Amino acid sequence: MRILGIDPGSVATGYGVVERRGAGAVHVAHGTLRPARSDGLPARLAFLHEEVGHLVARLRPDAVAVEQIFAGRSPLSALVLGQARGAVLAALAAAGVPIREVPPQHVKLAVTGTGAAEKSQVQAMVRRLLSLATTPPRDAADALAAALCVANEGPLARLQGPLDRVGARPSRRARNQRIGWRVR
Amino acid sequence: MRILGIDPGSVATGYGVVERRGAGAVHVAHGTLRPARSDGLPARLAFLHEEVGHLVARLRPDAVAVEQIFAGRSPLSALVLGQARGAVLAALAAAGVPIREVPPQHVKLAVTGTGAAEKSQVQAMVRRLLSLATTPPRDAADALAAALCVANEGPLARLQGPLDRVGARPSRRARNQRIGWRVR
Repeated sequence: MRILGIDPGSVATGYGVVERRGAGAVHVAHGTLRPARSDGLPARLAFLHEEVGHLVARLRPDAVAVEQIFAGRSPLSALVLGQARGAVLAALAAAGVPIREVPPQHVKLAVTGTGAAEKSQVQAMVRRLLSLATTPPRDAADALAAALCVANEGPLARLQGPLDRVGARPSRRARNQRIGWRVR
Repeated sequence: MRILGIDPGSVATGYGVVERRGAGAVHVAHGTLRPARSDGLPARLAFLHEEVGHLVARLRPDAVAVEQIFAGRSPLSALVLGQARGAVLAALAAAGVPIREVPPQHVKLAVTGTGAAEKSQVQAMVRRLLSLATTPPRDAADALAAALCVANEGPLARLQGPLDRVGARPSRRARNQRIGWRVR
């Protein structure tokens, strides 16, 4: 089971691929798509669309994980993000790969054990869970986290209790038990 | 000089093509792209992307006119519109056709003589300016209006005075002189 996570953005779109292996997950690839800053918006969107198609062709995921967006942002940032997201989703659907939209809280919960984690916590936990030599850049870490969340969906779905209290930070042991992974 | 106007939307994307002929413009085609309502968002965006590519291949415009968006909307509607717009702009750039973004006020001014026209006024004037037998649907009318605005850019650019006062409605004669067209 190979999952591609994508974190769309107009300046940088992060991606990351993990494979589920037993109760854990292993790292396959990650990176960041960066359209040329000198290009106009349409050319940058076309670049994103094309590169996402290439990613799917090259990495052959069984499913793609994309974070749901909540429109709690300003209209302008929602518009800018929406445009990048539209180009990316169109490419994924054209490639015929199943898409799973995951709420950001689930992603954070899956990798950090709390739905209210900071970006830096997500980066650090993604590095640890996937035994990476270095901390992945933020957009790629977010994409890897989304991929991990979907790779881990079985255990997550079996989770009994309510989501963590906002800001609560369970012990490392509790965290790893909850998400069903060994920290390697 | 053949201009394709596009009015992106997640439910309906209007398009319209006009050709500049001397001081006027003639109608070539218009219509509405409607993704299946039963499809999920990514499939609808992929449909838009693909169909816009087909439109450009079939209608061979010299340029495409797309209305600029101002983020004066709610974040949710900006997100939804942004996604459709992202898929459309990516397809246009991939097709290699020059894109002109035009402010909505310029579009309204070009076809109705006032920057604050109602939708129904735009529809009626597009029908009249292009001698159409019936009034085009709203999304297609908006697309034709954007195309007319760009087709008419020479005269519009030569316009000296300030934009019309909001709500002002010049006489039909003044209106037609200003936009440099004969009403046929």
